[in-house]
Amino acid sequence: MPSVSQKGLSMPESPIRKLVPYAENAKKKGAKVIHLNIGQPDIKTPQIALDAVKNNTLNVLEYSRTEGSEAYRTKIAAYYHRNGISVSAKDIIVTTGGSEALSFAMGSIADAEDEIIIPEPFYANYNGFATASGVKVVPVISKLENNFALPPIADFEKLITPRTKGILICNPGNPTGYLYSKEEIQKLAEIVKKHDLFLIADEVYREFTYDNTSHYSILQEEGLDEHAIIVDSVSKRYSMCGARIGFLVSKNKEVIKTALKFAQARLSPPTYAQIASEAALDTPQSYFDDVIEEYVLRRNLLITELKKLDGVKVAQPNGAFYCIAELPIADADDFAQWLLEDFRVNNETVMVAPAAGFYATPGLGKNQIRIAYVLDQESLKRAVHILGEALKSYIG
Amino acid sequence: MPSVSQKGLSMPESPIRKLVPYAENAKKKGAKVIHLNIGQPDIKTPQIALDAVKNNTLNVLEYSRTEGSEAYRTKIAAYYHRNGISVSAKDIIVTTGGSEALSFAMGSIADAEDEIIIPEPFYANYNGFATASGVKVVPVISKLENNFALPPIADFEKLITPRTKGILICNPGNPTGYLYSKEEIQKLAEIVKKHDLFLIADEVYREFTYDNTSHYSILQEEGLDEHAIIVDSVSKRYSMCGARIGFLVSKNKEVIKTALKFAQARLSPPTYAQIASEAALDTPQSYFDDVIEEYVLRRNLLITELKKLDGVKVAQPNGAFYCIAELPIADADDFAQWLLEDFRVNNETVMVAPAAGFYATPGLGKNQIRIAYVLDQESLKRAVHILGEALKSYIG
Repeated sequence: MPSVSQKGLSMPESPIRKLVPYAENAKKKGAKVIHLNIGQPDIKTPQIALDAVKNNTLNVLEYSRTEGSEAYRTKIAAYYHRNGISVSAKDIIVTTGGSEALSFAMGSIADAEDEIIIPEPFYANYNGFATASGVKVVPVISKLENNFALPPIADFEKLITPRTKGILICNPGNPTGYLYSKEEIQKLAEIVKKHDLFLIADEVYREFTYDNTSHYSILQEEGLDEHAIIVDSVSKRYSMCGARIGFLVSKNKEVIKTALKFAQARLSPPTYAQIASEAALDTPQSYFDDVIEEYVLRRNLLITELKKLDGVKVAQPNGAFYCIAELPIADADDFAQWLLEDFRVNNETVMVAPAAGFYATPGLGKNQIRIAYVLDQESLKRAVHILGEALKSYIG
Repeated sequence: MPSVSQKGLSMPESPIRKLVPYAENAKKKGAKVIHLNIGQPDIKTPQIALDAVKNNTLNVLEYSRTEGSEAYRTKIAAYYHRNGISVSAKDIIVTTGGSEALSFAMGSIADAEDEIIIPEPFYANYNGFATASGVKVVPVISKLENNFALPPIADFEKLITPRTKGILICNPGNPTGYLYSKEEIQKLAEIVKKHDLFLIADEVYREFTYDNTSHYSILQEEGLDEHAIIVDSVSKRYSMCGARIGFLVSKNKEVIKTALKFAQARLSPPTYAQIASEAALDTPQSYFDDVIEEYVLRRNLLITELKKLDGVKVAQPNGAFYCIAELPIADADDFAQWLLEDFRVNNETVMVAPAAGFYATPGLGKNQIRIAYVLDQESLKRAVHILGEALKSYIG
């Protein structure tokens, strides 16, 4: 029997995946499970996007252009202009989700054994794309104590080697909810220019910033054009995760030329999803205002309630819709499994994402969980109550 | 300025891509261009698939399951059963096009510097996926003289090294149109069992077989379960290339488990496209009968007309919708460009795919072109006429 590859064996499993059978089993036994574990928003997709697909008049579902149509990319460029980011259609490749944009970005800048520095905790799938590309993730630790702000630049400096090809950030952050300030982006700009590195920013949560903060994109920073690569996606912005449309954006012509070759091999991004995504660009501002208002209410409720729990520390998120909480326990993996297997309040329990899977440094985050606040306030409140009761019972 | 990766630099460009500006320029100058160069069928997508998307009732366009829903995969398994292939839902991963299935297959079985043997000429994008994965393509030559039949097994034997992880075939073939016989598949089965290799078969053209031949899948061959990996797609079957839905199919549990990890990293295949593709499984047989009848007429016309041209040799295709023709010229790249730039019959010209891009061995296929017969008979006939006139003028 032929054996699978070493690369395949070392591909990480999703940190949530191993809990799924326990959740399914709980449901099978009749329990209700409140999902705090996934970033699938409950928010309605803009009607204009849904309608565009329902009203499409295609007779032959053809390949689209490899990089997305000129018309669509021109509209995307206009969207970026409205957000203070000066790019044009030629700087944009439409991808199959932000996932593919990230995968193209890694392939375009790094060879096997090259290194990319990423502040941890980070979006777990970065590990998957790195492993698939043969690229080494080098983590730099950010801390709950200061809400997962940018680690000191000296910490980055220490990690830079001749194989370092870039720094990757997620802004605002999944799983941290941290929004980098303009000053932090400028510090990163300086270090990538100094060492001739790429700066990749996953900005898929760009719109989700709270408390009168605003997002500062790496492509708003002057002099960074040759270094900056944005990974973007419609998934969260318009609550259309199932579309699988994202963008790779760079003013570095060599990067676009190279990423386009990766794109050509897979022919084109999905056509129906592009119809929905192009229409979504005309979503009225009121949609976002309502969504942001709702997320702020949810976040406030969640953080307030979590802080009431004995021994729980929580980082204040001011972007995206995640937060990391530290629990007074030793092993969140065990706790999460126990919640699904053995703990109920009125026949209800919660599913959380153990945070260790978001760290690359072994041992870090073992007493932390990630919570996604993508469900209604009533459920969120009940979930935190259950979590509190569970902690008492688990510790006791 | 940071530089792109070596991998990125060595990613092949699509063999057609460099001709695109010449075609666009010809059109700009008012010429009509008949496209023989792309495998985008003109056939209508089944109404049942188009309707399913138009009538969808989604309000939140959510992620689908990473491997595709249980319901959809169960229906896919039933499709395979109807085609004599005994697999179940758990043996199937729904992918974003056959492209992604191939990419997962390569990543799952081969590490950087490992080798995969492929009969050439082969689908050019295999090179792209191999380069992206760091895998080395080892070509084994098949010949126009015998319609690109399976090369002698001794030729494969000579190429097997300790780094060989598998053999990849496309059946029926793009760009050759060759349909492997049961005996040929059995020979391949023997050699992969003997050397403990994987056998990957790209069977996306399964339905397109002519002249009372029938397709013999690698998963119909007994004893091959641990070796066989099918790459499949809805693109050509239902003329829905823009859906971007494919499948990776294997009864080797380790392969499925490994490929699933690659799939998890990119979250899920596109949701709308899965709605269309699931509905397409109920396409009536009459649709395929009509399509096959049309392709046979087109092929017969194309081959007959091509054979009338002085010095043109053409392989007889009995599957898919491509053929390779050898022209009495030295450099098909130059000829193809010249056709677009300088040659017109009644202000009309043709665009062909130079075949060298489908070979890995340098120098092979330089006097060959690939023709896709995915356009109406009237246009095909005119296209061959133009080609004939062009050859006279080009040679003279």
